[in-house]
Amino acid sequence: MAKFDINILGCGSALPTIRHGASSQVLDIRDKLYMIDCGEGTQLRLRQHHIKFTRLNHIFISHLHGDHCFGLPGLISTLGMLGRLGDFTIHGPKELETYMTPILNLFCQHLPYKVILHTIDPQKRELIMEDHSIKVYSIPLKHRVPCCGYLVEEKPTSAHIIREMTDFYKIPVFRLDRIREGADFVTPEGKIIPNHLLTRPAEPAKKYAYCSDTLPLESVIEQVQGVDLLYHEATFGMTEKKRAKETCHSTAAQAADIANRAKVGQLMLGHYSARYEDITPLEQEAKRIFKNTIMANEGMCISLK
Amino acid sequence: MAKFDINILGCGSALPTIRHGASSQVLDIRDKLYMIDCGEGTQLRLRQHHIKFTRLNHIFISHLHGDHCFGLPGLISTLGMLGRLGDFTIHGPKELETYMTPILNLFCQHLPYKVILHTIDPQKRELIMEDHSIKVYSIPLKHRVPCCGYLVEEKPTSAHIIREMTDFYKIPVFRLDRIREGADFVTPEGKIIPNHLLTRPAEPAKKYAYCSDTLPLESVIEQVQGVDLLYHEATFGMTEKKRAKETCHSTAAQAADIANRAKVGQLMLGHYSARYEDITPLEQEAKRIFKNTIMANEGMCISLK
Repeated sequence: MAKFDINILGCGSALPTIRHGASSQVLDIRDKLYMIDCGEGTQLRLRQHHIKFTRLNHIFISHLHGDHCFGLPGLISTLGMLGRLGDFTIHGPKELETYMTPILNLFCQHLPYKVILHTIDPQKRELIMEDHSIKVYSIPLKHRVPCCGYLVEEKPTSAHIIREMTDFYKIPVFRLDRIREGADFVTPEGKIIPNHLLTRPAEPAKKYAYCSDTLPLESVIEQVQGVDLLYHEATFGMTEKKRAKETCHSTAAQAADIANRAKVGQLMLGHYSARYEDITPLEQEAKRIFKNTIMANEGMCISLK
Repeated sequence: MAKFDINILGCGSALPTIRHGASSQVLDIRDKLYMIDCGEGTQLRLRQHHIKFTRLNHIFISHLHGDHCFGLPGLISTLGMLGRLGDFTIHGPKELETYMTPILNLFCQHLPYKVILHTIDPQKRELIMEDHSIKVYSIPLKHRVPCCGYLVEEKPTSAHIIREMTDFYKIPVFRLDRIREGADFVTPEGKIIPNHLLTRPAEPAKKYAYCSDTLPLESVIEQVQGVDLLYHEATFGMTEKKRAKETCHSTAAQAADIANRAKVGQLMLGHYSARYEDITPLEQEAKRIFKNTIMANEGMCISLK
């Protein structure tokens, strides 16, 4: 089965602690890496978790708060020192340009590769990036600054050939591509072998959604409907509901309610406020509403099946 | 004795490794903290080493390479979230302004305290900062970008009153300040009690010099003459002398030669290239030239006596 792993590099909120670092995740999908958010210290976490920098070509920034983007300059510099040559694209709200352009000018004059800043409108749901393996869409969120989440959809793979059957019917190799795409096979004697006898269906395409930082939003429910895994911020517990609203964050209960109504496969909570030395109360609060909830933690790797 | 501690937060070079972080040190002098350089992850190191952010009012940046300043935005933001109110001064070459002004505008609009950017000419030896406890001078260095080291000189403390003697002669409290400054005491009977019977001399003022990143410079020898501790970069060993010169860095042997000729009390090496998994060869190379050499390491604290 094609690989679709989510590596948690940091899942704390603005005030970093010894327990949790600033936000960053790396998706390891088929043979490529994609990063979502890049807080201070992200490049060090990549090293600690032995994640190879070289397969990383795209970073998606949710919003321009320091705990989601202060790791970019260091990571970009390090990739240069490691001799990277291929283009590198950072996607994010337009303030990304205001932030990064002076830094690239001052620190990265001699970078051996090109940094492309792809600015997006975080208030629109749009296709942000597409390659051989995935499509990435923005998910408009509501925070104190322009902000969006990201929906990462695997592209459907083609059906699997059942080798025993194609050998049995002596099907020539040049016909296999069409059979993968759904064609039947006609033997030289004119007998039709239906496609379903020759192939096993492809695995359903996997979907992952990242929503941080945000107030709980009705509009998100529809956009993350049925995803295999939803990462939703839960900066606070329900006892801090007022504070969550004031600071444009969500509680664990609110995140679980969204997961429940969106019928997602699994919910992962993160972006914990520094006040929670123990996140068990957040977990319990969410699980009462949506049982299949897990708590993000640095170094964690979740494989979508 | 007045406290003068040097805490090593990071002593690696540009490419961070799991062994060594980006450059940063905190000097803990009497009741205040002073930081020199602030690479990515510095605020996390402060927390790991339980160093209280609140007593920090000045940061001195040697030069505008990422591994010496990419930790500033995160640290400044965190100080704001912790409710800091007092002014905060960052000293450094003029590119500091080019770097920090856009970041302060974008990320720090609502900071509850004032960040003062004090830009200096790193090619001149100048008094950069003075307070009750210390004077800080720039030390012009030679690197690929404008760069200076810093000489931190403790101010002389006044002599110590010998309480038994001032009690014995019934010296009134209001005379003690003048005695501390060197005055003799005249008893009501006209007898002169010489100052040296009433006081113990103050400890000699301590001096610390930080020189990173730089080619080895003759001019530095005079400026760091006789300091208690010299931190000098030793990015490479002598087998990499050519590479050191090309990249405007020093070898361990060159750093030791400077320490030797400047007759410093102790030499501390740091800013090790990522290529050295084991820094013992650098240590041995330096000790052959200057015996009292120590190797910087994250978490180390050196107290000047």
